[in-house]
Order: sequence, then structure tokens, then C-alpha cells
Amino acid sequence: MTPRLDAPTAVEHAFGVIAERESVLQAWVVLDEDNARAAARRAPVGVLSGLTLGVKDIFDTADLPTEYGSPIYAGFQPHADAAAVALLRSAGAVLLGKTVTTEFAWSTPAGTTNPHRPTHTPGGSSSGSAAAVAAGMVDVAIGTQTAGSVIRPASFCGVFGLKPTFGLIPTAGLKPAAPSLDTVGIFSTDLDTLDLARAVLTRRSPSSRRGAVSFAVVRTEQWLEADLDCRQIVESTAELLAARDRELPEALLGLADDAPIVQSFEGAASLAWERQHHPELISAELRGRLAWGDELLPAEYDDVVQRAAYGRSAKVIEELFADVDVLITPAATGEAPEGLGFTGDPRFCRLWTLLGLPALSVPGHLGASGMPIGVQLIARPRAEDVLIQAAHELVARLR
Amino acid sequence: MTPRLDAPTAVEHAFGVIAERESVLQAWVVLDEDNARAAARRAPVGVLSGLTLGVKDIFDTADLPTEYGSPIYAGFQPHADAAAVALLRSAGAVLLGKTVTTEFAWSTPAGTTNPHRPTHTPGGSSSGSAAAVAAGMVDVAIGTQTAGSVIRPASFCGVFGLKPTFGLIPTAGLKPAAPSLDTVGIFSTDLDTLDLARAVLTRRSPSSRRGAVSFAVVRTEQWLEADLDCRQIVESTAELLAARDRELPEALLGLADDAPIVQSFEGAASLAWERQHHPELISAELRGRLAWGDELLPAEYDDVVQRAAYGRSAKVIEELFADVDVLITPAATGEAPEGLGFTGDPRFCRLWTLLGLPALSVPGHLGASGMPIGVQLIARPRAEDVLIQAAHELVARLR
Repeated sequence: MTPRLDAPTAVEHAFGVIAERESVLQAWVVLDEDNARAAARRAPVGVLSGLTLGVKDIFDTADLPTEYGSPIYAGFQPHADAAAVALLRSAGAVLLGKTVTTEFAWSTPAGTTNPHRPTHTPGGSSSGSAAAVAAGMVDVAIGTQTAGSVIRPASFCGVFGLKPTFGLIPTAGLKPAAPSLDTVGIFSTDLDTLDLARAVLTRRSPSSRRGAVSFAVVRTEQWLEADLDCRQIVESTAELLAARDRELPEALLGLADDAPIVQSFEGAASLAWERQHHPELISAELRGRLAWGDELLPAEYDDVVQRAAYGRSAKVIEELFADVDVLITPAATGEAPEGLGFTGDPRFCRLWTLLGLPALSVPGHLGASGMPIGVQLIARPRAEDVLIQAAHELVARLR
Repeated sequence: MTPRLDAPTAVEHAFGVIAERESVLQAWVVLDEDNARAAARRAPVGVLSGLTLGVKDIFDTADLPTEYGSPIYAGFQPHADAAAVALLRSAGAVLLGKTVTTEFAWSTPAGTTNPHRPTHTPGGSSSGSAAAVAAGMVDVAIGTQTAGSVIRPASFCGVFGLKPTFGLIPTAGLKPAAPSLDTVGIFSTDLDTLDLARAVLTRRSPSSRRGAVSFAVVRTEQWLEADLDCRQIVESTAELLAARDRELPEALLGLADDAPIVQSFEGAASLAWERQHHPELISAELRGRLAWGDELLPAEYDDVVQRAAYGRSAKVIEELFADVDVLITPAATGEAPEGLGFTGDPRFCRLWTLLGLPALSVPGHLGASGMPIGVQLIARPRAEDVLIQAAHELVARLR
């Protein structure tokens, strides 16, 4: 970890970078410099002291408006901070502002650009958090993942992105998309910083270095839907880490493709009020995905939920991880797509989100056109420490 | 089901009962007669048309303040209705007001009294919803259960109380206590009305009558902690329904007593902002329970979570329900305790909440002092239709 600045200096530095890059990047919904400077002076002393923070605008904040990426909530001011925000602030992190989210953390993007090439998407739904971290505007940012909303933008923007085990980070004050999938995630360019934020948010110890980690590569059912450069990067990573080959257990087949059933069935209900009272302020794309959720039979939803529950059972998890600690798999289909209208495809994240397993996108590779491509690592439930150690090993070997 | 009044007449009738009984009952935090009358005139036509509704003040409402039972939120006005409220209103139910919750749906009660005897607690945390339904003030009310907050007050107040399968009713706009346990529940004096509200909230069909239901009685590890009259009622119900005897599977032993670990560990994080910014406005009782959550080791929490996950596995559930459809077990330790400072003990609900199984408290019995005692029925995951049918059978036999 690089030595930390004191909080007021860190804030001035951050706003310097923001002044330079925000006009193109468009990572922020709201920034409050005065508030951030005041917060830097009076921030509690903690393990995150001197670190600047960006928060996806899907989390409530008591002192900044919260719009959930929707005009329905234009200017909305919550009463309280989301629990995750409160935990980070109480550990000393200084909140600079709210980062851009797609509409209600679904697919419809705002105008955030990729810091590596402004004609390309940063990914979504945690678009602004990934982009702001990648551009050096903040030390750490939080987002959420319901399908691939942390891992994918982390991969596209070339930063570390962690989606921890489902349920480890509190969701109070988070606008729900699909509650059985919604998971708070963390972005940073520094693995130790990310781990400290993870420790604070999960109220657990920071990771300690441990023995060697063993790996297997899992190409998944979607393998041929990844671009060639992406597949080559996964293969070379597997070779570098002496990974075994691993097939998906039969119990997990089909689940990645069926995960959208869970997302849309739950999502259609979560936004019940907005759909009744402001249908005209919901994008046609989102309306369509929620309408599909209305048409699903409860039996279709129940079937996926039951298969996922079995997939999370100790029996299947042990089959998946037999004799290895960490799985290597694509984070996305490849480089960030060109254009700002589509945030990319989450298909390589859906299975791991549905299973609630911890996932980490590790940067360090460039694709065919020179844009970042992350490698996704997966560990057993609650084995975030193993995941962090695995990422350290991978980073060390890439140097 | 009794024939329905038209909505405006139903609202006038409801406010008549409220005018008569609210001064003693204290079931409501806020009532808005003008708003309710206007809503009655313009309510959408749906399966709940003509039904009056009370909503526990732990759910957000766009047109009524929402205080979560805490002075920290005095006068707080949310922007939107909770998803569950929106679903009920869009099916025609008319919201009269917000019912009393204990502090953040934990244990510290407000002054609601039991409609059967005002010197006794109505139970909690859904105190006002259970009491208002029992007093005939509303046709249906919703609450939440994290330990025993629907089943227990339903038992104490002598009404039907349903805690459906975990996750079936959307939680968006609900103030979380412990997200892996929090479940939206429903109260009514009429089983068919309750079932219709359940169908609307879960977006599933109303129950249809089916063949005979088979029963087993499960006395649980807490059996001797129930009062004699309560145990006799469970035994006579078992006899009436020709129930077999069923022991708890070994995998479930100890879970009821360990469920508070999950509740307090998660609860301590969910209220992170309130604890940092307004500790002096949190009751000493709740502060203590959350402080205990802080002291728990993550490993203790993880252990209960893992044992509960195994308890929810198809293997254990099939052992629990082998050859029967529904379990009979106590709903509470007995009659509502005297006094308003303690809402009663949830120990007979904790296991079923932790397992996420649907539970229904069926009224029809009186305890030794003449206060209601409910019998709790439990079914397999998502088998709410079986539970409703079982309750119909029990009610028919009690006549």
C-alpha cells in the first residue's frame, strides 16, 4: 500500500484529479467539495483515515441527494446514510460524492465514459464507481451487483472489483433491485485498500498472508461467448498459476442462463410503487425487463430458486472446489464495448452472483484493442481472505 | 368470507370502530381520515376492493409519515410506498394509517394494549397491526417477523397471522432489522381475506381447496418453556387433527436458541447510521442487544448461518415433513403477559423464521385466564396454500 496522505490533503488531491477529468468521464451525479473538506477535518480516526470514497447513487446518504439513477427521485434527500456508507465513514473514509448508477442499477446507462477510452462504456451498473476509481479520483468506491454490476465494470475499467459473499455487507439503505441477489461490492486500484474496506464493511479482520493458493480454471457454459483475447488471457492466467481444469458440476448447468428469471421476477415487485405512479419516467428498456418479470410464472421462479439453493449446498460447493481454493474464469466477454448506450454483458457473472460466492476481478491485462480485461477469481463462501491472497499471487506473477 | 362493503362505507365503518376503541388500544401511530376517504373514492378495482388496510410503521409510505418506532425518524416522510404497500393498494385495499411498531421492529414497545384486556401486551413487534385487526378496526394489516413478530402478536390477539416463506413478499421500502430473517407477514380475522392479501403480495394465485391435509405435532426443544394451558391446547389440536408425533431432526437442534446470534450480528450493522449519529435516541434495551451483536465473533455468526442453510436443505426438510403436510407447534409460550413493557417471548417462532418456512397462527382457543392462545402451523417452503387449507380444517373442527 502506498503511504497515505492526511485526509484534507487527500481530498484536495482528489478534487484536483476530478477537475481535470470529470468533464469527459462523467462519473459523478453529485459532488460536494465544501462538505467533503469539512468531513476531512472532522473525520473519525480509523483504518480508512486519509482515504477518499465514492458511493454509487443507489445507496442513501444523509447529506447528499440520492436519485437511484432515475428522474423519479430527482433531488431526493434521504434522512440517513445507508449502513455500508455509515460503516466506511466511521472508519475514517471521506465521502466526496455520489457516483453514477444505471437506472435503478438495471441496464439503462447515464453518460459515464471509460477512463481508458471515452468512446467506450465503463460497464455498469456501478459505472461511476468503477470509472472514478480507475481515473484516480478516489481511493475506494462502493457499488452493487445483482448480475455483473461490480465485476464487469471493474474488468472494463482495469481496477480491482470485489463482490463478497452474499449477505456479508449490510444492505440497509440500499435501493433493492432483486433482494436475493443484490450484493454490495468494492472497487480500488490497491488490493490492500480494497481488503481494508472489505474488513470494515463485513466487520471482519483484514486478510493475513497465508500459504500458497491452489487454482482451477472453469471455462463455464458461456466460454465460447467470450472474445478470443479474453479467453487467451484466462488460459494464460491458468497456466501462470498452474491451475487444473475444472468442469462445472452438473447441478450448476443452466443456472447462469436462468438467473435473469430471479432478477426480473423479484425486480418487478421491488419497483411496484415506481411502476404504478411514474411509469412514464421509467426507460422503455427497464419497463420491458420488468414486464417480462410480470409474465414469468411463480413456478419458473421457484424452480430456479430451488436449483440455486441446491447449487449453494455444501455438497455441490465441495464438488466445485474439490482440492482447490480458487477458480479462474472470465470476468466479462472481453474489452468494454464501444459506445455508451450498452454497458456490456454480465453473463460471466450471473452464476457466481446467484450462488452468492465471493468474486474478484483482477486487472493487469489488455485486450486486442488495448483496453483492460480483468480475470475473475471465485472462492468458497466467506473465503474473501483466500481470494485476496490469490489476487496477490496473480499480481506478483504478472509483474 | 363475509360480503364486502363498498370502499367508502368500509372506511366509515372502520373509523367508527377506531373512534370507539383507539383511546384504549393505541394501535395507530398516524391515521389520516381525509386521505383514506379520498383513497376509498379513487381506489383501483381489484381483489382487495372494499378492504381496509393497516400498515406497520416499519414500511415506507409516500403519503403518511414513517417513524420506524424511533424518535430518530420523528415526522420522517418517505418519497415512495414500500413495494408491499404499493401491491396491496393497487389491488384495491384502502390504507387508513400506520400501526404501532416496537422500536425498529426490535423489542422496545410503545403503548399499544391487547384488545382482549388492556392491561396486557398485544405482543410485538407488529403490535398495532395485530391489535387493530383483532379490534375490528381494519380487515387486513401487514407486519414483519424477524424472530416472532407476526406469529406471537397474532396468537396474543386471537387473529390469523401468516409469516410466509422467506423472500416471497418484496422487502423494498422496509426498514431492515436482520435482512436474512426479515419477512413480511399478514394479519386478518378472516382466513380467505388473509389468503387474498397473500396472493396479491406474493403475486401468486389464491389458494384453492385441496384434499385432506396430514399433520404431525412437533413439540420442539422449547416445549417445557410453554405454559401448561398452551401445551394442552397444542396437544388437543394434535388429537383433533389426528396428528402423528414428530421429533425435530438432529440437524435442527440448537438452532432456535442460536437464532438471536444472526439477528443481533446483522442488526448491529443494519442500524450503523442511527447508532453513530443518535445513540442517545436508541433505547437502552436495544442498545444492549446491538452491543451484544458487536461482540459476537464472525465465526459464531457464520456457524449458525451454515447450520441454518443445512437445515433448509431438501434433505432435512424432507426428514422434518416425512409423510405429513403440516406441523403443529406452539405459537408462543402461552397467553399474552400482563403489562405493556414486555411484548412476550418469541422462542417458539425463532426456528421457523430462521428456516424461512411458512407459518400461520390459528386462533380459536382461550388460555387459563381467558386470553387467546394461537396454534402455530408450519408447512414446506412455498406451501402457503397447504397452510391455508390446514387452517380451514382446524377451524372447521373447532366449530
